[in-house]
Amino acid sequence: MSSQTETIEALFEGAARLASETLEENRAGRGPVVRRLSPEELGRALELELPAEGRGLECVLELAAKTLRYSVQTGHTRFTNQLFGGADPAAIVGEWIAALSNTSMYTFEAAPVGTLVELALLDKLNDFVGFSEGEGVFAPGGSISNLMCVLAARQRAFPHIKREGLRPEDRPVMFVSEESHYSLERAGLVAGIGTDGTVLVAVDEVGRMRPEELERSIASERAKGRTPFFVAATAGTTVAGAFDPIADIADVTESQGLWLHIDGSYGASALLSRRQRGLLAGCDRADSMTWNPHKMMGVPISSSATLMRTKGSLEETLGMHADYLFHGNSDNAYDLGDRSLQCGRRVDALKLWFSWQVQGDRGFEERIDALFGQAARFRELMEERPGFRLIREQEGTNVCFRYLHREKRGAEGSERDLHEHAATLAIRAQLAEEGSFLVNYASLDGAATFRFVAANPETGDEDLTALLEAIEAAD
Amino acid sequence: MSSQTETIEALFEGAARLASETLEENRAGRGPVVRRLSPEELGRALELELPAEGRGLECVLELAAKTLRYSVQTGHTRFTNQLFGGADPAAIVGEWIAALSNTSMYTFEAAPVGTLVELALLDKLNDFVGFSEGEGVFAPGGSISNLMCVLAARQRAFPHIKREGLRPEDRPVMFVSEESHYSLERAGLVAGIGTDGTVLVAVDEVGRMRPEELERSIASERAKGRTPFFVAATAGTTVAGAFDPIADIADVTESQGLWLHIDGSYGASALLSRRQRGLLAGCDRADSMTWNPHKMMGVPISSSATLMRTKGSLEETLGMHADYLFHGNSDNAYDLGDRSLQCGRRVDALKLWFSWQVQGDRGFEERIDALFGQAARFRELMEERPGFRLIREQEGTNVCFRYLHREKRGAEGSERDLHEHAATLAIRAQLAEEGSFLVNYASLDGAATFRFVAANPETGDEDLTALLEAIEAAD
Repeated sequence: MSSQTETIEALFEGAARLASETLEENRAGRGPVVRRLSPEELGRALELELPAEGRGLECVLELAAKTLRYSVQTGHTRFTNQLFGGADPAAIVGEWIAALSNTSMYTFEAAPVGTLVELALLDKLNDFVGFSEGEGVFAPGGSISNLMCVLAARQRAFPHIKREGLRPEDRPVMFVSEESHYSLERAGLVAGIGTDGTVLVAVDEVGRMRPEELERSIASERAKGRTPFFVAATAGTTVAGAFDPIADIADVTESQGLWLHIDGSYGASALLSRRQRGLLAGCDRADSMTWNPHKMMGVPISSSATLMRTKGSLEETLGMHADYLFHGNSDNAYDLGDRSLQCGRRVDALKLWFSWQVQGDRGFEERIDALFGQAARFRELMEERPGFRLIREQEGTNVCFRYLHREKRGAEGSERDLHEHAATLAIRAQLAEEGSFLVNYASLDGAATFRFVAANPETGDEDLTALLEAIEAAD
Repeated sequence: MSSQTETIEALFEGAARLASETLEENRAGRGPVVRRLSPEELGRALELELPAEGRGLECVLELAAKTLRYSVQTGHTRFTNQLFGGADPAAIVGEWIAALSNTSMYTFEAAPVGTLVELALLDKLNDFVGFSEGEGVFAPGGSISNLMCVLAARQRAFPHIKREGLRPEDRPVMFVSEESHYSLERAGLVAGIGTDGTVLVAVDEVGRMRPEELERSIASERAKGRTPFFVAATAGTTVAGAFDPIADIADVTESQGLWLHIDGSYGASALLSRRQRGLLAGCDRADSMTWNPHKMMGVPISSSATLMRTKGSLEETLGMHADYLFHGNSDNAYDLGDRSLQCGRRVDALKLWFSWQVQGDRGFEERIDALFGQAARFRELMEERPGFRLIREQEGTNVCFRYLHREKRGAEGSERDLHEHAATLAIRAQLAEEGSFLVNYASLDGAATFRFVAANPETGDEDLTALLEAIEAAD
């Protein structure tokens, strides 16, 4: 065995040990959620200067340890800041193997295992959606998946567009809810129709798109001479976690002949739970869906399925048939490259495959139920404590709330909102600074609002209570 | 220590062992490059059925071993099929840590280490390009980077486009070489100008864009009333590995006031070598560049830098300023989210940082020189052997060639091309079937042509000779 071989063995073993330790600490909720440093301080703590002379493999474990020390511990039970959390050891190993076997998903030839695994996963996800003749492809995140679906809708409505581009008379217009993710509006921008080409449809008091407003907007745009071509319903909005009423929206899109997309980046995983799947009732009537297993299902970023109800539309929209890649032999039916906006593409499917074998449908269902249960429990715990106020009636895994200290509680209306706004910013910053909790905030109904996300099923009652107490105790 | 903790420890240790063994085998060139199975056979060998009941963490190492067994061994010294190869242990550990610490690059707050590391790397790459006031962002591959640059150029030329979309009078047209990567033409399609909106400029006998043809095409498009806005020069074309004459093209784009992009997905890494950087002379005059460290620099997929000569244009093009993410505090100057076409985004920068600390500028320079040297050596070895014919005078890391068995060597002109075409397909398929070598082919100058890529510096003279002998010995 050469000395380099020994060095590599020791390196990989060391990395595995570091990984076990980190996971164990975070699962036990030990240590801070984050060690906050300013960019300048952190810059001094890291080796950011890229040297002319290499330092050899010996420096890697030190870099790895530093990286972990100063990273946000997203696997920590008190990290509730993003739409993802926890750490799935099977999926982590899936990523390791993907990095090690390093290949690219354009062809079955280059990625035989990745291709078959991705196809099996797409079939499985499509089964849950109800796309019985569907297809799809993985993408590096919900924004890119959403973009691909906007492009597929554009292609169907304006078949000349792939070759000719937009014609002056096309005047496309698309519709999303005013609480939808910004990637949809930006997809319109990318597609050449500008942000003016997207109509933001009003939502109801819990943040769901109003189908009657959608219908009205479509009529109004048609009256202006524009051509509606795409409607996105959101399953799980980013801030409030609301589920748009898909069946009612599908009634509108079907009667109007429009493409219905579901941005389920966040909430499509509710389909895995028999108790929760009703939130997406009617989703099988959509033309496309985005579903991110890297959110509620807990695999590492990125895992984003772009799902289509019918076969062929992705290739029709994006396929360029490069002959240096696609050799026209019998295995080419399996090549995924012409369905994708990428050329080289990581094997993102592997981690989800590993995780699915380990957890099974039932394991994922338990996870989803646990997350919904955790959010409901957090709301319950909050109701017992004065000063906390839920913003919106919510049913999902997000809890949007504000808090006021005793002396400010007399205020009402916009004065109360102002106090709550200031308190949210101050308390949230203090918790993050201490590293005790990371919980995000966003502007909701006119003022800054805490947004707690149940994303890690290992977060327990004691964590939830501790968060409420920490908020009460903050200066 | 809980039993689950022990299970995870054993799992990670087992994965590390598997990784060491795989790397060692491939570096030594032991074992086949690929164990080819048909999709049906491979489907039976893998566990593609996703079970209702989970199988527990115990199944993971078995899945990992199966994955590695049936994957193409891209780290093998006889894998020369794609524009990447080899396996960098430091970068692999970088990917492991990125998967473990699982966060997203939208904000400094969520990814403090990843953000500073990415910024440091972008500065370093920009230094090599000569973008002294530049900026950039990592993207999941060259296709997405190229798309972002097309969009930035579109935004500069048609400032109304972000809000209003394309106006009928805009009539944009872009220019790339006829041997450029298909992602550029497709970027135009995505941007709403259709494949007709891209002019394919003729190349010279080695595959370089002809600047005088570019100039002529621009004039001709202007005469038709269209508005040129974007020119892409390619540094390292996909098949022939040609470097377009950047300085001459920059003369044209500067005099015409057009955006100059360099698609250096493949070849920008030549800048790391003092001997080779002349291939990109004039690149500091470009407006943007795509550079993929996951190709010549050997880090795992994806690593794609989108580099811009001036600050602000990515955000101007793509920024949506979502308030739930970007909180307007002092660290927000570091937030990269509004420069990206993604929202959630993997920490791709980590692996390159690890690798750069280990190798330094000098290590990368040696690697690049070794790859160029390997390709030159392969051409030399080929010249000594009758029946081999180089297609194109090449200077890069690709070697395009054809071979004829003795009995067919009398043919000339198109008859010879036909024989060579058939031989390329047959021999290439046989080597792949045996698993002895994986070397790609593409259509070049009218017939199928082997495309050997020097991508793994550990590929030695004995591998090169063995490849030539295997081609001679094929039926």
